[in-house]
Amino acid sequence: MTYSVTVRDHIMIAHSLTGEVFGPAQRLHGATFLVDATFRSTALDDDGVVVDIGRATDALRGILSSFSYRNLDELPEFAGINTTTERLCSAIADRLASVVRDGGLGPGGAQLTAIAVTLHESHVAWASYEVTL
Amino acid sequence: MTYSVTVRDHIMIAHSLTGEVFGPAQRLHGATFLVDATFRSTALDDDGVVVDIGRATDALRGILSSFSYRNLDELPEFAGINTTTERLCSAIADRLASVVRDGGLGPGGAQLTAIAVTLHESHVAWASYEVTL
Amino acid sequence: MTYSVTVRDHIMIAHSLTGEVFGPAQRLHGATFLVDATFRSTALDDDGVVVDIGRATDALRGILSSFSYRNLDELPEFAGINTTTERLCSAIADRLASVVRDGGLGPGGAQLTAIAVTLHESHVAWASYEVTL
Amino acid sequence: MTYSVTVRDHIMIAHSLTGEVFGPAQRLHGATFLVDATFRSTALDDDGVVVDIGRATDALRGILSSFSYRNLDELPEFAGINTTTERLCSAIADRLASVVRDGGLGPGGAQLTAIAVTLHESHVAWASYEVTL
Amino acid sequence: MTYSVTVRDHIMIAHSLTGEVFGPAQRLHGATFLVDATFRSTALDDDGVVVDIGRATDALRGILSSFSYRNLDELPEFAGINTTTERLCSAIADRLASVVRDGGLGPGGAQLTAIAVTLHESHVAWASYEVTL
Amino acid sequence: MTYSVTVRDHIMIAHSLTGEVFGPAQRLHGATFLVDATFRSTALDDDGVVVDIGRATDALRGILSSFSYRNLDELPEFAGINTTTERLCSAIADRLASVVRDGGLGPGGAQLTAIAVTLHESHVAWASYEVTL
Repeated sequence: MTYSVTVRDHIMIAHSLTGEVFGPAQRLHGATFLVDATFRSTALDDDGVVVDIGRATDALRGILSSFSYRNLDELPEFAGINTTTERLCSAIADRLASVVRDGGLGPGGAQLTAIAVTLHESHVAWASYEVTL
Repeated sequence: MTYSVTVRDHIMIAHSLTGEVFGPAQRLHGATFLVDATFRSTALDDDGVVVDIGRATDALRGILSSFSYRNLDELPEFAGINTTTERLCSAIADRLASVVRDGGLGPGGAQLTAIAVTLHESHVAWASYEVTL
Repeated sequence: MTYSVTVRDHIMIAHSLTGEVFGPAQRLHGATFLVDATFRSTALDDDGVVVDIGRATDALRGILSSFSYRNLDELPEFAGINTTTERLCSAIADRLASVVRDGGLGPGGAQLTAIAVTLHESHVAWASYEVTL
Repeated sequence: MTYSVTVRDHIMIAHSLTGEVFGPAQRLHGATFLVDATFRSTALDDDGVVVDIGRATDALRGILSSFSYRNLDELPEFAGINTTTERLCSAIADRLASVVRDGGLGPGGAQLTAIAVTLHESHVAWASYEVTL
Repeated sequence: MTYSVTVRDHIMIAHSLTGEVFGPAQRLHGATFLVDATFRSTALDDDGVVVDIGRATDALRGILSSFSYRNLDELPEFAGINTTTERLCSAIADRLASVVRDGGLGPGGAQLTAIAVTLHESHVAWASYEVTL
Repeated sequence: MTYSVTVRDHIMIAHSLTGEVFGPAQRLHGATFLVDATFRSTALDDDGVVVDIGRATDALRGILSSFSYRNLDELPEFAGINTTTERLCSAIADRLASVVRDGGLGPGGAQLTAIAVTLHESHVAWASYEVTL
């Protein structure tokens, strides 16, 4: 048995990608990323939820706020790193995992087994990353 | 190898949630839940399907009809239980599993390995529950 | 030439409807309404927008906050009135129109020609109301 | 009687907006715009269509190709102009209108009465522009 | 002031199109059409609705049932006629208009001012037809 | 840790299904299938991606082109086989797997662990098939 809860938010960023494989995306361009953060658990807490959805939403928004309306090429944390959709998924998921481990989602977070983050870059392409806790 | 088939339906219900964590959702309010029921199998039957989609749709509708246009706070089966989105997912999935075990989806149902139910409570939040058969 | 800008939000409410035509919806039930508020204009302001989207979003959220997580049957403003999807559209649109007339969307609001509000009650049904300013 | 046909494509661009009203969007950021181009007519041609959808799709893609994977701040055509979602709608619609007037959609284009372009900047915000022909 | 209500259903059909403009669609192929039927009115009836949504849904389903799971090339009513998405929109809208004029939507139908039908043939293309009553 | 990338395309086909379980779908009809192809990996390549999304998109389009605008009942490869949504998922996924094994997605393809294909036959029904590499 597996339970999960997902919350959606979005960011609008600029960036460029290095490598011939990216073709025109090597130029400075941008994206609206719909960000879906999924929290998995094998049981529910005493309130009957996987995790406090309000806290989860706030945690996601807090993490996204450091990327939102930014040129990712200028952020120190991505220096020398291609900010592909896949990499942004893992960057966000790993930050959410840290929040969970630090108790930022409250006692309910202790029962979480995995976090998955999906970024939709358009209506025809998206990427995901899942990390176990 | 894993196959799956999913059918979508919806319900419109009233309910309230008990516990400070729910904030304003402690008040009597309501929701439209989009309900996605997924049936998984490692093989297809002689007709080339996971399960008869017509029967699956009818089974889901039958289960949902007992919740549809109801105040969940007044249903005996949920007395003393928070009807969170997660709990409604498992309530529906467990009923579908019973239908399968009772042969309600026909002989094709015997090969099913799991049932997953996702309830979308809005365009920005949803929950899932998966049970193995 | 017509320009428009639309912002989306949502509410989760309980209510019941009076009249045989509503069938099972005469019982206390609920809905998640996706709320799309559209602002129309025949010209753009000096910033190149129909209206400040931040102010528009805040105005919509402010109006929705009085309905959100409520049982509409208990709100004085709807006493004796069926809170059909159509009526909720006009209630929200008329409130937005008042905000515009009171200057609540700033000077850009003066050029608006119409406001339309659409409420999606499920993935298969929605209603709209449009009022000229 | 009014007929219409709509085709969808998308672009991923970087830009910044000038004016305090834009808040954090004054910084260099970006967007994925889903672009819906609608062609209106009061009658169908001999083939039974509003316009050759293949030509319409190609015309839209041709126009979008000059914006795609670009930093709009660096395009001469937008020098000194805020590339708001509204302005991009009209820029694309006006170019489509020119294609129609130049016969680029074939003889069927002669019967078109209007072109509308909608740009979705996220799942919660979009803008439109409609021009009569 | 304009009110509208929209209901969604779908059909799965086979057909072919005649004329070089259709390219590969001249071959026998098929489509799932999402069908959105919109009913417009300038006022609400005594129940507070544009039209009884249950009756509207049933009327739409009744009309669609004659097309559903059919090869449109074999239907007498489309003999010698290209069943383009535009033409199917008008065929369905005209039939809905007849139902309204015959009182099939009940007394509420008398106040309707227009019917619009949109058929989505994919996630990237759709057509509409609107007829005044 | 699992990464994935998904690309979406679509096909419009005619077909009929054999077996009483299919009811009216035994008649010649058709479908628009939204096709989502997901590529999974436990690591990213040197460019920071699961696989070259351009190559993946081209590979999917190449495979779909043999089905697009066709009557599947007439394709030799499906002679005597019910072209259910499930079977089409596996037909497409297996062809994608072959492309990967033949190096058609480039060196990045060597790290792929699984391919999943989902076909949406309408807004209320879809099927999936996943194969490990």
